[in-house]
Amino acid sequence: MNNTYICPMLKISNRGNHMPASPIRKLVPYAEAAKRRGIKVYHLNIGQPDIETPPQIIDAVRQADIRVLEYSHSAGNESYRRKLVQYYKKVGIDIAYDQIIVTTGGSEAILFGFMACLDAGDEVIIPEPFYANYNGFAVEADVIVKPITSSIENGFALPPIDEFEKAITPKTKAIVICNPNNPTGYLYSAEEMEVLKQIIIKHDLYLFADEAYREFCYEHTHASAMHLTGVENHVILMDTISKRYSACGARIGAFVSRNKALMETVMKFAQARLSPPSFAQILAEAAIDLPDDYFNIPKAEYRLRRDTIVTRLNNMKGVFCPNPGGAFYAMAKLPIDDSDTFCQWLLESFSFHGQTVMLAPATGFYGTAGLGKQEVRLAYVLNTSAINAAMDCLEHALEAYPGKMGI
Amino acid sequence: MNNTYICPMLKISNRGNHMPASPIRKLVPYAEAAKRRGIKVYHLNIGQPDIETPPQIIDAVRQADIRVLEYSHSAGNESYRRKLVQYYKKVGIDIAYDQIIVTTGGSEAILFGFMACLDAGDEVIIPEPFYANYNGFAVEADVIVKPITSSIENGFALPPIDEFEKAITPKTKAIVICNPNNPTGYLYSAEEMEVLKQIIIKHDLYLFADEAYREFCYEHTHASAMHLTGVENHVILMDTISKRYSACGARIGAFVSRNKALMETVMKFAQARLSPPSFAQILAEAAIDLPDDYFNIPKAEYRLRRDTIVTRLNNMKGVFCPNPGGAFYAMAKLPIDDSDTFCQWLLESFSFHGQTVMLAPATGFYGTAGLGKQEVRLAYVLNTSAINAAMDCLEHALEAYPGKMGI
Repeated sequence: MNNTYICPMLKISNRGNHMPASPIRKLVPYAEAAKRRGIKVYHLNIGQPDIETPPQIIDAVRQADIRVLEYSHSAGNESYRRKLVQYYKKVGIDIAYDQIIVTTGGSEAILFGFMACLDAGDEVIIPEPFYANYNGFAVEADVIVKPITSSIENGFALPPIDEFEKAITPKTKAIVICNPNNPTGYLYSAEEMEVLKQIIIKHDLYLFADEAYREFCYEHTHASAMHLTGVENHVILMDTISKRYSACGARIGAFVSRNKALMETVMKFAQARLSPPSFAQILAEAAIDLPDDYFNIPKAEYRLRRDTIVTRLNNMKGVFCPNPGGAFYAMAKLPIDDSDTFCQWLLESFSFHGQTVMLAPATGFYGTAGLGKQEVRLAYVLNTSAINAAMDCLEHALEAYPGKMGI
Repeated sequence: MNNTYICPMLKISNRGNHMPASPIRKLVPYAEAAKRRGIKVYHLNIGQPDIETPPQIIDAVRQADIRVLEYSHSAGNESYRRKLVQYYKKVGIDIAYDQIIVTTGGSEAILFGFMACLDAGDEVIIPEPFYANYNGFAVEADVIVKPITSSIENGFALPPIDEFEKAITPKTKAIVICNPNNPTGYLYSAEEMEVLKQIIIKHDLYLFADEAYREFCYEHTHASAMHLTGVENHVILMDTISKRYSACGARIGAFVSRNKALMETVMKFAQARLSPPSFAQILAEAAIDLPDDYFNIPKAEYRLRRDTIVTRLNNMKGVFCPNPGGAFYAMAKLPIDDSDTFCQWLLESFSFHGQTVMLAPATGFYGTAGLGKQEVRLAYVLNTSAINAAMDCLEHALEAYPGKMGI
């Protein structure tokens, strides 16, 4: 007998295969290659601000008296949660400390929300373009993202209520809103939030509100989902300190809700992973003591950058960039054939005075295939002189790009 | 018309309902009540060591020059991963830095492994009793834990190969091993690891090796799953610095594998959550520079504690505690009716000279219902005088407990 042992292949899970690669990071190898060729790359592709993390909150970590770096409470240090109540009060959100579970970044708050509120095959409605990592967490939780399209022509306003109604099925369990929005910078008005309230009441849905950019609203005040009345059990705030204090590496977020049964459920997920990071909780707690005017300077800086980038973009031939009301992103429509090709070409084949710019193709932010091919996201996380230099690159690139469209 | 609007209930997901509460933490309210009554509680219930975190690694965080606390690379800082290669080399594990993805605690490494290797409904075999949070991650990934029982009578040795064979179905994708083991303290031998190797080859399974307690082996050297040859694509190391450097609050772990396709898949999960915590990566990187003899002192201390607790337990009437070869846990069989009732009674109804002890009922570590009712887990994370005081409490408690069994 001549038995040949056939080793079946070890398989990656279907979930692993379906997991999307980060559309923002996939161009990184091209950027690295450009740098190796000596080209300076302006990174407008990711939301990593250059704003200084407040030194006093880093000092709080330095000065902490730690003998044993212990697990914290699974919901986060009680002292931090109690101080967070003060922070939320200042932004008009009345909650108790036990309505907060500290998470490892806003990312974990999103995952906990999907896991605790939706089952496999359930659907979540998200206005597109949307933060691309929602797709990843949806794959992890085995839930289906149903995008409804917002349009650059009206600045990415909330799609009309009809569009929501059309997308709702018996499987729909939640709506995700990011306000102010990443990637569009759109700031939802109190009236639009009321529209969402009517939908979640009528169809008994959760409303997940990602308010990572709450502090950065330029003309109007922020309308939090937590301000909505009569939907206390529906609303979940998915929060983070990453952008607020320019502390992305801390990995501190929060899952906030007045829904007691839900908080008890999320607590089980929090316990399984033991605790959020201890050092960063010290930083986050110290941040609550920053003076009330702390945000004035970064906000003024972001506003100046926004004005700079939006003006520059709209002055380019065939380019349209609606003025974003918040966050630090702008979406622009460019006279190009394909934003993925264009963004790669910027890194691979273009330079202007030895410089180029890295942008995020908008295709990665749309759930509907084929959308975003003429749009890019620009994160205005660099200072105005860098932004101007990057816009010089872009302006020349649009002239030189082989796939430019007639205007 | 008299329409009454009936609001359907917002539902918690089935997954959320099935998510197990932490069996280790569920007695916490009773402990808090005992403390409010003025009773001193010795915490032998959780694996939070009192060993000092090496001051020089905390100093590394204090001295870090941070202007902007940025996201790190999604796989962790390259400098840290390159130093980790040196650490692993010292414990006989040859890997490259791109075979490591830094995770947020060992917890995240486990979740990534389940997500990337198994689909909904797939099965993972785990010798029981096992680390209870594997259940939680299994619920999150919608995979089924198939326990095979190891027994206190032979010190919780690896169950015979037949038991594995009986449990394997076409849905079986992986085996999880924790070595040295939490909760049993059992140290798997190189021969037992070879048995596992034969099983994973024969049935084409992944082997997830949780080696959180690698440094704490008292009589024998550690046989890592990464030492196995010819199964490079099968083996995944789920690691953490939590216990190694008494740095549980850092939340730094690692997903380590030589399986390239798997690493590429896990990278997508890592990108979705952006990055592991930045401060703690500085601490973890500094830890690689600790002198080689650093572990001698904590290891000697744990060994002394083990000898103390095991001797005390085996000197109690009707108590049996096998000598654990590693980690800092002991499992003891007690002459009691029900370990959950007993552990709660210790906190609610018992004290000895104003003191009592908190233990973890073993029931929470078994996947098979009904097992562990006469067993408890004791974490020897307190110094020997506290352990002796706790054992005085336990000895008297076993006399006083209404549910004690005839011996």
